[in-house]
Amino acid sequence: MTSVDRWQLPDGIEEVLPAQAANVEQLRRRLLDLFRSWGYELVIPPLVEFTDSLLIGLGQDLDLLTFRLTDQLSGRPMGVRADITPQVARIDAHSLAPDGVSRLCYAGSTLHTRPKSLMASRSPIQLGAELYGEDSLAADLEVIRLMLATLDRAGLPAGYTLDLGHVGIYEAVLDVAELNDEQEARIFDCLQRKSVPDLIQTLDDVPEDVAMLIIGLVDLHGDDSVLPAARELFADRAPQALAAVDALQEVATEIRRLRPDLPVYFDLAELRGYHYHTGIVFAAYVPGHGQALANGGRYNGVGEVFGRARPATGFATDLKALVSLLPGETATGKGAISLPDSAAPELLALAEALREKGEVVINTLGGEHHARCDRELVLSGADWVVKSL
Amino acid sequence: MTSVDRWQLPDGIEEVLPAQAANVEQLRRRLLDLFRSWGYELVIPPLVEFTDSLLIGLGQDLDLLTFRLTDQLSGRPMGVRADITPQVARIDAHSLAPDGVSRLCYAGSTLHTRPKSLMASRSPIQLGAELYGEDSLAADLEVIRLMLATLDRAGLPAGYTLDLGHVGIYEAVLDVAELNDEQEARIFDCLQRKSVPDLIQTLDDVPEDVAMLIIGLVDLHGDDSVLPAARELFADRAPQALAAVDALQEVATEIRRLRPDLPVYFDLAELRGYHYHTGIVFAAYVPGHGQALANGGRYNGVGEVFGRARPATGFATDLKALVSLLPGETATGKGAISLPDSAAPELLALAEALREKGEVVINTLGGEHHARCDRELVLSGADWVVKSL
Repeated sequence: MTSVDRWQLPDGIEEVLPAQAANVEQLRRRLLDLFRSWGYELVIPPLVEFTDSLLIGLGQDLDLLTFRLTDQLSGRPMGVRADITPQVARIDAHSLAPDGVSRLCYAGSTLHTRPKSLMASRSPIQLGAELYGEDSLAADLEVIRLMLATLDRAGLPAGYTLDLGHVGIYEAVLDVAELNDEQEARIFDCLQRKSVPDLIQTLDDVPEDVAMLIIGLVDLHGDDSVLPAARELFADRAPQALAAVDALQEVATEIRRLRPDLPVYFDLAELRGYHYHTGIVFAAYVPGHGQALANGGRYNGVGEVFGRARPATGFATDLKALVSLLPGETATGKGAISLPDSAAPELLALAEALREKGEVVINTLGGEHHARCDRELVLSGADWVVKSL
Repeated sequence: MTSVDRWQLPDGIEEVLPAQAANVEQLRRRLLDLFRSWGYELVIPPLVEFTDSLLIGLGQDLDLLTFRLTDQLSGRPMGVRADITPQVARIDAHSLAPDGVSRLCYAGSTLHTRPKSLMASRSPIQLGAELYGEDSLAADLEVIRLMLATLDRAGLPAGYTLDLGHVGIYEAVLDVAELNDEQEARIFDCLQRKSVPDLIQTLDDVPEDVAMLIIGLVDLHGDDSVLPAARELFADRAPQALAAVDALQEVATEIRRLRPDLPVYFDLAELRGYHYHTGIVFAAYVPGHGQALANGGRYNGVGEVFGRARPATGFATDLKALVSLLPGETATGKGAISLPDSAAPELLALAEALREKGEVVINTLGGEHHARCDRELVLSGADWVVKSL
């Protein structure tokens, strides 16, 4: 390998250089402070865990996204976390094991074997918040509101949208349909791709009533007109789905009351995280940006494998993706102050005081002012003062 | 695997729970702010890189500490970073490629296949600062002073010590000794263990003059009396080592002038990072804590494999280890404010304002105050006010 390609990074694995890194750090602090102010306590889960605790039945997706390692001390298989949420669920269920509601948040790097979608990073900095121990819609609403507050605090301009779905709808349809596993897998695939022609072909050997129900799902996305259309479709064919439609209505009404200007859309065939989620799911989108900017949903029962099933809802975002969508900040601010190569105690004390006030004070190291400096410390009479360069 | 052991973490892989996590986060911010104020710009290198760029001749130690993965996109071998310094050197040499001095800093999780020493973590949160493009002792001094400022800013009580060494001394001795590779390896091993009996046995087939020189090294640790003793030992037998002794003297004198109360010790047989470092090495120790709390040194030429050799010096510390040595902070601070389940716009605006002021305001979610709350928002006449619980 020559020095020319030695510095190449793997596809989808990014480094963040100074100007952008300062923005990422500022945003990280702002958002963790926001979470703290809503009562969400920070936890720092480790980079790796045994696969037994990392891959806890959250579906094949996460399994395939996870890099495997062998622990040289125990010989047991470990995984590099592809998602921090299961770790936080483990911390809630086992390490903290509180009686009532617990609110936890986190920020850290994750790693994916392959990009989750075209153009996606394989090493997002995942930042999120999780609420355990409360199964009400009020808890889902709190998390959705916190997700919206996160995007606002980040400085994302208005114009993003909120998408709502509910996995209970597809579950109710499946209950009615009584498909075999292979049919189910094929239909799931067609629905994820929202491909009606493929779906029609796949539904060839399914009773017409069931087929119409499943094909009907594909059209159930868009504005408020979706909900009455869903009620009509499900009323006779899959009445168990109606409770989920009611829940969506209630959440949308509440969010609209708090945020009248926010466009809210529904997608009742939304199957993202289907094997993971158990109720309301939600995502924020920016026009022209394919991936969700932040998303989440209810995932009850995830602590069960740790001996303590807990109601759970939460959301996450990727700090690097979020920063890239923000209006350019002037991260550099003003310049730095040059510190001459002198050991005068008064000079060093002044440099210290300036640094504590937030100024950047850079040693000259042999006489030359660093390129970032626009001021210098000079002796004026008996005192050291800051002077323009 | 039962639910009882499903939550076990691998040995040496820790999670950080709320009280301590808040301390880690506060310390991280304080120290990155300190680095920034000295002119060190933050970079965020990725969790993994191709092994070709991660393991750049920094010795077998780092190689054995690094977990390997195969990149599923390219089929090429990758490593999970065991040390962030080589990544920052790559960023300086290639991604930024500045002409003059560059100062970079970072904070992030690393992963080790096995603990570097007894009781050491296998997943330290490495925080450090690196100075490139300047080969003078003034640059080493800047980094040592920044390391000391880091420990002070962290709130570490006085009583820690600074240990100084210089790999040029052992290099000069090796030059004189003309040993074969096997002898060299055995002597290196004995010196690292500071085992004189083993050393004497190993030096059996070495000329007596050379043997005395090498055995003499073992005693060259301690207070200022070490330097004259070293000059006497090297004067005739290994005069090339004298420049390194002079450099140590100069650094110690300067540090003592700035920090008269700090105990400074020398260890001329210090071989930590011998294959990595090229000049002065330094470490801070706390009595009773075996591992160095922070350490660093000069490592010129590390950018050479990226096509651009640069003088380099820097230091790093482990945030988790550092926090564990600090006097217990009252991280919890005052309690939280309970927010009743009402959608009154004035109430929500007040909650928002309190959160922005740094208060923790927690939704009741159906009526019960969260255990952390010591105050609540209540309606008094026409206004919402904060009242003790």
